Formats: sequence, structure tokens, C-alpha cells
Amino acid sequence: MRLAVLEAAADLLLEGGLAAATIEGIAARARVSKVTIYRWWPSRGSVAIDAYFHRFRHTIDVADSGDVDLDLTAQLERLIGAFDGRPGVVMAELIGQAQSDPALAETLRTRWLEPRRAAAIAVLERAVGRGQVRADADLTVLMDQLYAPIYYRLIMGHQPLDRQLAGILVADLLDGVRKCSPTGDDRSSRPGTSAPITRPARPEEPPRRT
Amino acid sequence: MRLAVLEAAADLLLEGGLAAATIEGIAARARVSKVTIYRWWPSRGSVAIDAYFHRFRHTIDVADSGDVDLDLTAQLERLIGAFDGRPGVVMAELIGQAQSDPALAETLRTRWLEPRRAAAIAVLERAVGRGQVRADADLTVLMDQLYAPIYYRLIMGHQPLDRQLAGILVADLLDGVRKCSPTGDDRSSRPGTSAPITRPARPEEPPRRT
Repeated sequence: MRLAVLEAAADLLLEGGLAAATIEGIAARARVSKVTIYRWWPSRGSVAIDAYFHRFRHTIDVADSGDVDLDLTAQLERLIGAFDGRPGVVMAELIGQAQSDPALAETLRTRWLEPRRAAAIAVLERAVGRGQVRADADLTVLMDQLYAPIYYRLIMGHQPLDRQLAGILVADLLDGVRKCSPTGDDRSSRPGTSAPITRPARPEEPPRRT
Repeated sequence: MRLAVLEAAADLLLEGGLAAATIEGIAARARVSKVTIYRWWPSRGSVAIDAYFHRFRHTIDVADSGDVDLDLTAQLERLIGAFDGRPGVVMAELIGQAQSDPALAETLRTRWLEPRRAAAIAVLERAVGRGQVRADADLTVLMDQLYAPIYYRLIMGHQPLDRQLAGILVADLLDGVRKCSPTGDDRSSRPGTSAPITRPARPEEPPRRT
């Protein structure tokens, strides 16, 4: 019965946005009483977010292939895929509403964001355990540098949100984008160009990280 | 007179949020007519965002010290500083409202985000020009990996938004967080770990970046 409520709420939410996912509407669609819904959820917002999480629960799954690049990229791709079309519009709406509704914000954080972060941080922790990611990296910041750009593009709309983004986010962050030129004297050998390209872009050790 | 309107709108916005920044209120505070305001701005949202941009215009300034780490960190710190307290609450409110107001979203994008992105991307372009950042890096994605975490923490509130974050964001992205262990034989000296590493974590060429 709890499942019927979640399915009904997810349907309404994805069809008509948060405004359509009323307790009355959900109760009618799930063929349960409003009392039943209020037994499990304190508010419309909390049913809506649980329903959204339920509908996209599989996007939280992370393979453990041993290859951190592959596993992170696949998880980011699944999130980007989940936000394609209506579901992305609804997530943007939920985030938007949460800015003026502290209870909804709290629900969004605890029922959507935190479980997802826990799953994704486990990938990073395994990577640290395997010696693939530096043990001194701040994993909460890494998480934001991987996931925030997806939400940011979703809510700002300044750049497209396509699956290709996933691999770039992971590669940028794992390998860095610094171009190494420790001696700096390559420059003199190529007059007329301002950007010398004479060394491997990827050194054995990252420079200047203290 | 345009400046008086911007100052009045910024005051009202930061005192009482978007709801307080009415055309009537701004006109009264700036001692101009509503007609005067409508001569320059099509809507309340557009005055509000121009006013916000005006109030925090100096946070867009980027030094050109020649050190991309320093310049980016300083710019991110200024943005984080600008979002401290009420101005951060107001930006979150503007972003929130923009999710259900396409005109406000467009104004936020064109009057706040794009000028700021243009200034910050110039830092990255100079860094590419100097050979500090790889020429094949996707600068629009880099921008998002630097700036999106700040907006994301602001609107999600899952992690604190402190100035210290700026340096970590820059270092993570420039140097990457991959741990190099080209030989991989450290691991054999650590019995009890389950994940073998048998190949270099950082090859000469980026993996799977297409």
C-alpha cells in the first residue's frame, strides 16, 4: 500500500509537477484514504520527494568494477539520464520550491540528497582504499565537483545537460587540468606562439599541491 | 538616476527579499517615478537582478597575477564572501523563483551568470594561453566544477559555504585527485587489503575521454 502511494505520487508529480501531487489526488489515484497517507508522511512535499526518489531509486546503484573512472561516470550518466525531460523539470521545481519552504528543503536534503551522496561517497571511499584516489582528498568537496554541475545546469539552464558531461567531470577531477611546464624555458624555442606545448600533459606526480 | 534605482532596489532586496523589491517601493526609495524605472527595466525581476549584480559587481573582478591558482581562488573566495548571510539567502530565493518564472530565469542567466562567467573564463583562457591549463580542457565544464559547488551548497544547504572551500575547489581541479602508484607494489606490503592495483593509475593519455 505504501508502494501504491509512492507510484501514484510519482505519476502525478511527473505529469503535473508539485502542484498536481496533492494528498487528495494521490489518495484517489492510489485508492487509499488520506489518513493512510498521513500515517506515513507528514506533508505533501515529503510524499513527493519520497515518490521521486522511489521512481529513480535505481539511478543510485553503483557498480563496483574496481575502476573508479568507470563507476563514477556510469553513476553520473544515470543521474543525467534521470533528469532528461519532465523529471528534470520537476527536480528543478522541487529545488525552486525548497528555497521558500524549509520543510521541503529539509526533506530534499535528507530523503533525496543524503542517500544519494552516501552511495556515491562509498565509490570514492573504495577508490581511496584501493589507492586510486589520494587519501587526503576532501571527499565532500569532490562529490560537489562531480554532482553540483549537473544540478547547476539543470536549474540555471546555461549549458546543455548531456550524458557526455559525465566522463568529462570525472576525468577533469581525477586527472586535473594543469599543464605542466616546470622548466618554463620551452617558450623560447617556439617564437610567435604564446602557449608552448612541449611536454606531456600528464606528469607522474601532481605539482604544487600542499 | 539609474544608479539611484539600482542602489534602492539592492537595499530593498537585501532587507526584505524579492517580495520587498516592488517597483513602487524602489521608486519611492530612489525618489523617481515608476515610469522612469520601466523606461530601463521591463520587470521587477530584471531590476532586482541588475541591482544584485550592481551591489556585488566588485566580486567579478579578477586579478591577473600570472598565477592561475591564486587568481581563481581569490575570485571564488569573493563569490563565497558575497553570499555570506542575507545576500546568499536572497540569491537562493532568486534562483528558487526562477524555477517557476522563465523571464526571471532568463534575466538571472543573462544579467548575473553570463557576465560573471565571461570574467572567470577569461582567467582560464589566459591560463591556457600561458600553458598552465591544458588546451584540450573543456572550459565551460571547468567553470561549472569551480562555481557550481558554491551555488549547490547555497541552495541545498547540505554543507557549509566557507571561504576555505575556494582553495580546495581550485587545487582539486588543477591537480586532480588521482593517486599515482605506477608500480603498484606498495600494496603487496599491506596484506589484508582486497583491491589489487596492478597498473598505473595515471597513464600518459587520458582514458576514455572522447
